[in-house]
Amino acid sequence: MLLDKIEKANDIKKIDKSDYGELAEEIRQFLIQKISVTGGHLGSNLGAVELTMALHLALNLPEDKIIWDVGHQSYTHKILTGRKDGFDVLRQFHGMSGFPKRKESSYDAFDTGHSSTSISAGLGLVKARDLKGEKTTIVSVIGDGSLTGGMAYEALNNAAKLETNFIVILNDNNMSISENVGGVSKYLNNIRTATGYLDLKEGIYNALKSKPGGDGIVNRLRRAKSSFKQLVIPGMFFEDMGVTYLGPVDGHDIEGLIKVIEEAKRVKGAVLIHVMTQKGKGYGPAEKHPARFHGAEPFDIETGIPSHPRTVANYTDVFSTVMCKLGQRDERVVAITAAMPDGTGLKRFRNMYPDRFFDVGIAEEHAVTFAAGLAAGGMKPIVAVYSSFLQRAYDQILHDVCIQNLPVVFAIDRAGLVGSDGETHQGIFDYTYLSGIPNMHICAPKNKWELSDMMKFAVALEAPIAVRYPRGTAYAGLAEYRAPIELGKAEWIVREGGIALFAVGSMVKTAEEVQALLHEKGYRASIINARFIKPIDEEAVLSACEDHDMIVTMEENVLSGGFGEKVLTCLNDHDRQIKCVMAGIPDAYVEHGNVDLLKKEIGLDAVSITEKILEKL
Amino acid sequence: MLLDKIEKANDIKKIDKSDYGELAEEIRQFLIQKISVTGGHLGSNLGAVELTMALHLALNLPEDKIIWDVGHQSYTHKILTGRKDGFDVLRQFHGMSGFPKRKESSYDAFDTGHSSTSISAGLGLVKARDLKGEKTTIVSVIGDGSLTGGMAYEALNNAAKLETNFIVILNDNNMSISENVGGVSKYLNNIRTATGYLDLKEGIYNALKSKPGGDGIVNRLRRAKSSFKQLVIPGMFFEDMGVTYLGPVDGHDIEGLIKVIEEAKRVKGAVLIHVMTQKGKGYGPAEKHPARFHGAEPFDIETGIPSHPRTVANYTDVFSTVMCKLGQRDERVVAITAAMPDGTGLKRFRNMYPDRFFDVGIAEEHAVTFAAGLAAGGMKPIVAVYSSFLQRAYDQILHDVCIQNLPVVFAIDRAGLVGSDGETHQGIFDYTYLSGIPNMHICAPKNKWELSDMMKFAVALEAPIAVRYPRGTAYAGLAEYRAPIELGKAEWIVREGGIALFAVGSMVKTAEEVQALLHEKGYRASIINARFIKPIDEEAVLSACEDHDMIVTMEENVLSGGFGEKVLTCLNDHDRQIKCVMAGIPDAYVEHGNVDLLKKEIGLDAVSITEKILEKL
Repeated sequence: MLLDKIEKANDIKKIDKSDYGELAEEIRQFLIQKISVTGGHLGSNLGAVELTMALHLALNLPEDKIIWDVGHQSYTHKILTGRKDGFDVLRQFHGMSGFPKRKESSYDAFDTGHSSTSISAGLGLVKARDLKGEKTTIVSVIGDGSLTGGMAYEALNNAAKLETNFIVILNDNNMSISENVGGVSKYLNNIRTATGYLDLKEGIYNALKSKPGGDGIVNRLRRAKSSFKQLVIPGMFFEDMGVTYLGPVDGHDIEGLIKVIEEAKRVKGAVLIHVMTQKGKGYGPAEKHPARFHGAEPFDIETGIPSHPRTVANYTDVFSTVMCKLGQRDERVVAITAAMPDGTGLKRFRNMYPDRFFDVGIAEEHAVTFAAGLAAGGMKPIVAVYSSFLQRAYDQILHDVCIQNLPVVFAIDRAGLVGSDGETHQGIFDYTYLSGIPNMHICAPKNKWELSDMMKFAVALEAPIAVRYPRGTAYAGLAEYRAPIELGKAEWIVREGGIALFAVGSMVKTAEEVQALLHEKGYRASIINARFIKPIDEEAVLSACEDHDMIVTMEENVLSGGFGEKVLTCLNDHDRQIKCVMAGIPDAYVEHGNVDLLKKEIGLDAVSITEKILEKL
Repeated sequence: MLLDKIEKANDIKKIDKSDYGELAEEIRQFLIQKISVTGGHLGSNLGAVELTMALHLALNLPEDKIIWDVGHQSYTHKILTGRKDGFDVLRQFHGMSGFPKRKESSYDAFDTGHSSTSISAGLGLVKARDLKGEKTTIVSVIGDGSLTGGMAYEALNNAAKLETNFIVILNDNNMSISENVGGVSKYLNNIRTATGYLDLKEGIYNALKSKPGGDGIVNRLRRAKSSFKQLVIPGMFFEDMGVTYLGPVDGHDIEGLIKVIEEAKRVKGAVLIHVMTQKGKGYGPAEKHPARFHGAEPFDIETGIPSHPRTVANYTDVFSTVMCKLGQRDERVVAITAAMPDGTGLKRFRNMYPDRFFDVGIAEEHAVTFAAGLAAGGMKPIVAVYSSFLQRAYDQILHDVCIQNLPVVFAIDRAGLVGSDGETHQGIFDYTYLSGIPNMHICAPKNKWELSDMMKFAVALEAPIAVRYPRGTAYAGLAEYRAPIELGKAEWIVREGGIALFAVGSMVKTAEEVQALLHEKGYRASIINARFIKPIDEEAVLSACEDHDMIVTMEENVLSGGFGEKVLTCLNDHDRQIKCVMAGIPDAYVEHGNVDLLKKEIGLDAVSITEKILEKL
C-alpha cells in the first residue's frame, strides 16, 4: 500500500509521480471504508482528494498555510499530515475532530466550521506574513456553495487591493450541501459547461477570430451581452473585483493542478484558481445522491444504505409535516432556508408549494432580512435554520425583524448539543442572544406534539417568535399533556411540592428522570414544562415559591443569559427568597462526541443534575 | 416658494417640469438650513435630492415602495411626503426620526439604519407582491458604500433568479462614510471616469469599431484583460451576477433619471440603475469635506464650522491617543475599522502606521475574521467598531475568534445610548451577546484614564477581550482612582457600608450622583467600579454582602443577559441572600433623542435609580 508510506506531513513528496493516481485511489477507499463505519462528511472529501494532494505537493507545509472553508473537506489533509489513525475515532468523544483544529495539528492553520470565512482568515494571515517580512504561500480553499455567503465577497473585495501573493482556490462542484442557487452559481456553471475545461479560452478566442471583423463582435456584444459576456473572458466577474482569475482547471488532474498552483504563486496579488471537481467522486452512491452523502451516517459500502436506518421520527420530520399543514391552511405561509432544504425538512413543503419556498443559498443574513421584507409585504414567513447558523443573522433579527415587530417565525433546528460536529455547530447560545432582543418571543417544545402546536401558535402570533428544538429523535413521552399553548404560560406536568423542576424543551424529559431519582432518595419533585423562555411565566415561578423549597432550572443552553438567569431576575424582582439550582451549559465550548456522553461530561444529565440538587439541599 | 406647494405625498406631481430645478434648489436650501440647526445627515441627503424627486415623479406611492438603504438619505423623501414640519424637531426626543420609520409614515416601506439591507428587504417585498398578484414597483436605493457589505451581494445573487421586476438603484457617490475601499469600488470608479457618463457605451463601441478587425480586439483582450474588461461592457460585473445593468446616468438630471426609471420598470427581472451623484452637492463645505458632513453637528451655514465646537475630549479621542502609543510600543499592534477611520478615531494611527491600518469597508463580518487571521499570524489586532455595528459580526466573534481563543481586542465605541440616531444605533446589547461567548472578556472604563489603562491591559492579554465605552465626553472625574487593571477585579471607590453600588463603565459617574442623593436621605452607600463584566469580580460581590444591606447593579445595557444577572447568579451560586436592585435598560427599543432625556425616560438617571433603591428599602 502506498498509503502506508504516508506517516507524517510531506511524506507524500517521496511518492513517485507515476503513483499519484494509485495513491488517490487508496485514499478514496480509505475514506469510504472509515466513514462507512463512523459516519462523517463523505462527498466533499471524495471530491477534494487530488486537490489536497496537489496542494501538499506544491506547498511547503507547515510554513505555507492552507485554510479550508467550512473544513468538512479536510479529511485527506488529515491523512497526509499523520492523522490516519484518527479516523477510527472520527468525530467521537475525545476522538479526532471532523474539522481543522489548530489544537489538533500545527498543519491546521485556522479552525473552520461555518461557511465563507476562509478568505477573510487567509487575508489576515497574508497581512501578518507581509508585516513579518516572511515569504510563505497562503491558500484559502473555498467551495462554490460557500461563495453564496456575503462574507466571501467582502473578503474578495478587500483582497483585490493586495500587492502580494494570496491564492484562493474555488473548489467548484456545482453544489452547496444541496443544489446551488443564485446568479453567481449560474455564472460558474456557464463557464463550466461552455466548451469543456482547459481548452475553453482557446475555443472562444478561435471562435471570435473566425468572425468577419470587429463590427460583428461589437454588434453581438451589443445585442446579446448577457449570453455572451462570460464567453469573452472566463472569470471576468472575479477580475472585475480585482482578483486575477486562472482556470477553469480539472480538479482531478494532479499534475495540472500543481502546474496552475505554481503559476498562481508567481502572481503579485490575489489570484483565484477555478478548480472543477465532482462531489462524491469515485463512489457511485455518493455521486448519485450528493445531498445524502454530504454528512453521512454509517452506511453499507456495497449499497450505500444507512447501516442503522432511522425508525422513529425526529423533530425535523415533525416540523416537516406541520409545515405542509400550515402551508395548506394559510396561503400567506412562506418558507425560507439557507441551503438546507433537506436538513431542515422543508423539502416536502417545497414540493407542495414551490412558489412559496425560497432557498437563498448559504446566506443567513439575507435569509432573515428577506423574511422581514416578506412579512412587511403581508406574508407569514418561516425561517428554518440550525441554531448555530442563525448566529450569523443576529443583527438582522435585532435590526430588521424585531425593531419593526414583524411576524417572522424562526424554526430553530439543531438547538442544544448537536454531537459529532462539535464546537462550531453546537446550538447552545440562542436563548442568550435572542432573549436580549426586544419584541422577540422564544419557546421550546417538550415533545413532538408540542412542536406541532407551537408552530401553529407561532404562525398565528403577530410578532417575531422563535421555536427551538434539538437534533435527533422527537420525544414521544408525555403524550397526555397537551394543554393549549398560551403566550408566556408554562405547563405544570406534576405538582407535588418539594423541588420544582423548571425544564425547557428537551430538558423536560431529563426532568422526568431527575424526578425519578429524587423519588428514590425520598424527595418530592414537581415538573414544570417552561414552554416559554421569553417571556417567562413569572406567575408559575412565584406560585412555585409557595409550596416548594427549591427551584431547579434546566436548559440546554449556556447559563449566561439563559433561562435560569431570567428566573433569578423574576425572583429578585418579586423579593422571593428560595434556593435555586441552575442546570445548563457552563461557560466553555463543548467539543464533538455522542450527546449523552457530552451531557455527562458537562453535568447536564439526570444523574449530575440530581447530585447538584442533593448537594444544595 | 415651490416648496410651499408640497404639503403631502404626490404633490410634487403638480409641479411644472420647468420648475424641477428650482424645487431641487429650494429643497437643498431647506435641508442646509434645518440641519445647520438640529444637526443630522447632510451630505448624503444633498446628493440624493434629484434622485428622490425623480422617484416620486416616476412612481405611484405608497402602492409602489422605496427602500432606502441605511436610510440616512431619506430626508428629501420625508419632505415630499408631508413631513416638512418634522425637521424642526429632527432626531429630537419625541421628534422626527432621521431614518425611515413605518410607524412614522405609510410612505416609509421598511425601517433601515444599518447598511446593506435594502436589497434583501426589497426582494422580500417583491416576492410578497408577486404572491399577492399585485403589479407595483419596488425600488431599493443603495449607496456604493453599502455595496461593500456582503449582505447586498447575497441579495443580488438571489435577485438574479427573479422573473419579475425589481429595481435596484445604485447611488454611487464614490464614498462610503469616508473614502471607499476595495475592488468593486475601483471597478465602479473605472466606469465612472472612463469617458464621461452617458456617452460611455457609445464611445467604447466606436473605439472598438475603428480597430482593424476582430484579431486585434482578441489580442488586446488577451494581453490586457484586466485593464480592458470594464470598457467592453459597463456593468458586466452585475450582468455576470444575472442582474440587468442600466447606466451610468447622471444623478442630478431629473428628466434623465425619470426616463431610465421608466425603462427599468419594463425589465422582467432584477435591474440595477447605476446613478452617479455627488455627496454634499450644492453646499461648498459639504462637497469639500464629505466625511465631516456625513453626520453633522449644528453648524454655521456661512463657514460650515460647528456652532458649538467641542472643547473637551471624548472617549474616541482618548482611544485615538492610546492607539498611537500602543502602535509605537509594539510593532505587532494593527488596527482595523469597517469604514470608520474618523468615527472610531483611528485616523491618527493610520497616518502614523499606514501599513498596520486596515479599512475594510462596511464589512464587519470580514473585519472580525480578518482580525482573527491576523491574530493567528502573530499580530495583535484591535478592531475599533461601534457597538450596534458589531452585532453584525456576532458569529465571527463566537466562531472565528473565541473558539480559537485568539487575542483580538474589540474597542467598542458608541456603547450604551447614542442619542439622536435612535433605535437602530443604540449600543445596548453588547454585554448580553458577548457575555454568553466562552473565552471572551469584557471590561468598561469609568473615566478617560481608565480607558487608556484598559486598552494597554487588553493588548497585553493573550485572549479575546472587548473594551466598551460610550459616545461623548470622556469622564474626567475620579482621577485619583487609578489602581492597576487586574483581570476580573473590581475597584472599590468608596466603602462605607449600607448600599453597595456596583456600577459599570459610564454608570460609575451616575453612581456618584446616586450616592450623593442617598446621603441626602441619610443612607450610606459604597461605590464599586465593576470594571469587568466578564468575568465579574465574585469576591467583590461576596465581600459586599458582609457589610451592606443591598446591592445595586448599574449598567448601560439591556437587563436581559447583562451585568446584573451575572451578579444575581453569583449570589445564588454562593447562597447569599441580599436585596438587589438592577438598574439597566428595560426590554424595549430606545428611540432617538438627547441621552439625558432618554435616561430619565427609561429610569436610568440618578434620580430614578435612587427612587428605585428607596422603594426597595
